[in-house]
Amino acid sequence: MPEVVVYILEGRTLEQKRGLVKDITAAVVKNANTTPEQVTVSLVETAKTSKAKGGVLFSEMPGR
Amino acid sequence: MPEVVVYILEGRTLEQKRGLVKDITAAVVKNANTTPEQVTVSLVETAKTSKAKGGVLFSEMPGR
Amino acid sequence: MPEVVVYILEGRTLEQKRGLVKDITAAVVKNANTTPEQVTVSLVETAKTSKAKGGVLFSEMPGR
Amino acid sequence: MPEVVVYILEGRTLEQKRGLVKDITAAVVKNANTTPEQVTVSLVETAKTSKAKGGVLFSEMPGR
Amino acid sequence: MPEVVVYILEGRTLEQKRGLVKDITAAVVKNANTTPEQVTVSLVETAKTSKAKGGVLFSEMPGR
Amino acid sequence: MPEVVVYILEGRTLEQKRGLVKDITAAVVKNANTTPEQVTVSLVETAKTSKAKGGVLFSEMPGR
Repeated sequence: MPEVVVYILEGRTLEQKRGLVKDITAAVVKNANTTPEQVTVSLVETAKTSKAKGGVLFSEMPGR
Repeated sequence: MPEVVVYILEGRTLEQKRGLVKDITAAVVKNANTTPEQVTVSLVETAKTSKAKGGVLFSEMPGR
Repeated sequence: MPEVVVYILEGRTLEQKRGLVKDITAAVVKNANTTPEQVTVSLVETAKTSKAKGGVLFSEMPGR
Repeated sequence: MPEVVVYILEGRTLEQKRGLVKDITAAVVKNANTTPEQVTVSLVETAKTSKAKGGVLFSEMPGR
Repeated sequence: MPEVVVYILEGRTLEQKRGLVKDITAAVVKNANTTPEQVTVSLVETAKTSKAKGGVLFSEMPGR
Repeated sequence: MPEVVVYILEGRTLEQKRGLVKDITAAVVKNANTTPEQVTVSLVETAKTSKAKGGVLFSEMPGR
């Protein structure tokens, strides 16, 4: 507690994921009066064909 | 903002996904006083072996 | 199935909510080969003091 | 209704998943005044490289 | 780990909530090879005016 | 994109929330190759009577 869920496009490197969970956990510990062991982070990764902004799939955006 | 998450069985075609995110986004824009660019939609797809109704996995329902 | 969750700022009127769930459900039925009775929509409403974009709470954005 | 989402590491067997959704559904029916047919359970499975506790990915924890 | 989120209509009694989290946790421990201390359950309660099935708000369903 | 959801006990101060969303957003921007404007953070706050660890509601834990 707290539990963090991040909805993100797939394709991040292991190094990026390592940094994401480390820094998000630190942000929670700093501001929510808890310890790192209480914090879980789940990255829910979706393909570009399964995520959209502005009503358009990321897989069909020009320049992506 | 708003962010929409749809928990759905995997197996939709690209055309279905394209329609889903387009029409859901339009529904949000129409009713929530926002613009398309503010709306994200994430399809969280699960296998039939990881989703259940009535306590039974979809993979083990007769006729599926 | 499918289950839709919408993360949205609180403050929508009943009429807006009625339209949101009706039109989102129609969008899912049209594109996901299901029936209305299978579709649930949950609006998870957060206060402007509990939601942020660009690292800034909506309650602290100028003009809101 | 209700809809249950379980964020869990991937790697469960079919038998474990079958038991999870069956027993969680029974727990909801017993305590929430509903019927099994109203209850959906989605297992959102993440790789050990996409989930963390204490700021450390499960894939990088000693002994895992 | 695992983290369970239950999307449910508001209005459950404290006794029902106590039973829900106790029995769901037991279901997870029994089937997912973990200990109770690793399991969190969050009840995300929504008003009948913010949840729908079949495109209709629960607040507007006959007999509710 | 990405969208972050934090499941947390209610009771944080405005200052804590301000810090949480600011620092989580910075953590995402640093590690996920995006800009602050693309990042939303929603704090889903639950009462101590609606959240549990180890099968016990936080409202019924000794010392809380």
